[in-house]
Amino acid sequence: MLPSWRDGVARDALLSFLRDVEDVHPQERVAIFDNDGTLWCEKPTYPQVYFFVHELRGKAATRPALADRPEYRAVLEGDRAALGRLGLERVAMALVELFEGMSPEHFTDRVDRFFADERHPDRRVPYGELLYVPMLELVETLREQQFRVFIGTAGGADFVRAVSERLYGVAPELVVGSRVTYEARRSDGRLTLVRTAQLDGEPNEGPTKLPNIQRQIGRRPRLAAGNSPGDAEMLEYASTGEGPTLALLINHDDGEREYAYESEAGTFVATESILDTAARSGWSVVSMRADWKTVFTG
Amino acid sequence: MLPSWRDGVARDALLSFLRDVEDVHPQERVAIFDNDGTLWCEKPTYPQVYFFVHELRGKAATRPALADRPEYRAVLEGDRAALGRLGLERVAMALVELFEGMSPEHFTDRVDRFFADERHPDRRVPYGELLYVPMLELVETLREQQFRVFIGTAGGADFVRAVSERLYGVAPELVVGSRVTYEARRSDGRLTLVRTAQLDGEPNEGPTKLPNIQRQIGRRPRLAAGNSPGDAEMLEYASTGEGPTLALLINHDDGEREYAYESEAGTFVATESILDTAARSGWSVVSMRADWKTVFTG
Repeated sequence: MLPSWRDGVARDALLSFLRDVEDVHPQERVAIFDNDGTLWCEKPTYPQVYFFVHELRGKAATRPALADRPEYRAVLEGDRAALGRLGLERVAMALVELFEGMSPEHFTDRVDRFFADERHPDRRVPYGELLYVPMLELVETLREQQFRVFIGTAGGADFVRAVSERLYGVAPELVVGSRVTYEARRSDGRLTLVRTAQLDGEPNEGPTKLPNIQRQIGRRPRLAAGNSPGDAEMLEYASTGEGPTLALLINHDDGEREYAYESEAGTFVATESILDTAARSGWSVVSMRADWKTVFTG
Repeated sequence: MLPSWRDGVARDALLSFLRDVEDVHPQERVAIFDNDGTLWCEKPTYPQVYFFVHELRGKAATRPALADRPEYRAVLEGDRAALGRLGLERVAMALVELFEGMSPEHFTDRVDRFFADERHPDRRVPYGELLYVPMLELVETLREQQFRVFIGTAGGADFVRAVSERLYGVAPELVVGSRVTYEARRSDGRLTLVRTAQLDGEPNEGPTKLPNIQRQIGRRPRLAAGNSPGDAEMLEYASTGEGPTLALLINHDDGEREYAYESEAGTFVATESILDTAARSGWSVVSMRADWKTVFTG
């Protein structure tokens, strides 16, 4: 069981949890995993950012006027000063506009192509090969123990859903993420949903993950895994429920095999290092360097 | 296959659809069922209304002052004139307030008790025994064909989720319904979500069912079943997708074994009889009287 995990306190905590939940009704076996930095690599930046940039470049090739818009010009030129001036939120919302009017099926197709064709800038492999082997083993082990395994991500729900079934065996309805709103349109006797450029609620990060879990899952998870301050409330919620629970925090301390960094939240400023939160809360901290025999699938 | 369905055009349409979807990728096999009047009996009124009244009576027994509130007095006295004057929405929102501050687990426990203890006013059996046998057979047959089966209901998501796994084998995350908003609260070192009295978006009925399907399921259903104008857009959305699709409309034409009535939407005024919509749209209409050998499980 869990062959890519080295002996140690993290693996012991997992095995102990897996034994304890044998007494829990299978309907109450719910686990949720953050995605960026927990299931797949989020450095140098999030795969979704590379996707947005890729789509913008593709569109700008046939519509050069797009580069007149300051947000797009800053992205296309990689102008960090301009990006800083404009702010992440304004740039992100401009990129979301690229997909306005697109059907969910068309959007999924765009994401599929990105994962098939594009390569990670440092490792030169498809982004879908930069999954963490030990975490996939954990997901598989939980499923064997009748857990339903969800993803709770600040990334776009529809971005992650496009590949979650293939990469993780996680069906679209088991992905809780940030959302855009959709509008229904009729044309040629068909009713179709199309994306708007408006967010549907707040990004799914920090405290927002909790009502979104209730809204979509309807049950309290008893295992949660994450790596950043944006996962803190989700981990606290899972680990302060009744019966056996486990909060897992991935520590990115392996500069040789991955990237050494302290995880930060994407959309808000955290008041505390997530490692301090973990120590204070008694969460199980996973050292990539010490606890994992292998890191990446690819 | 489908032993409780009599030979006829409805059964033929089902069998034909089940053959056609063998060519569809299992990931694209998504079916969604309305609940009230499609999977369980909704007459004389919705089980959720009986639940609300039951809870109000229980509370009013120990807190008689509740009856001073006009909405509650009208409900407790069954005063149709007063209910009409106050309006369904105002009365419903007052009833939702009864559960303010309650955790999801506590609310689920209340619903469980209602289904265990209370009896349908006409048939004197628990509400959970008034499920339609032929529809359960269809749900089971779809699952055998690798369909993921969802519920899309105007009823409260958390009300239906409390019993959907036991009654239908539909896990909570597969129920798309109307929602209240939740707030996170910390006490005694535990983080808990509690219900508010505010709705989270519009009731899940009519056109609202579509973005909610995308939000939670992320895929277009290829089979949808319903019975009222509140299901029209869901049936249209499913049946105008690509590849094999099926829209099923349950016609409540069996006054002897069930109730004979024309289904209406709960929260909005429809512009057309749903039977006319079905005829115009080429949906498969299921006659309870002609097509079903048995009706209820109990």
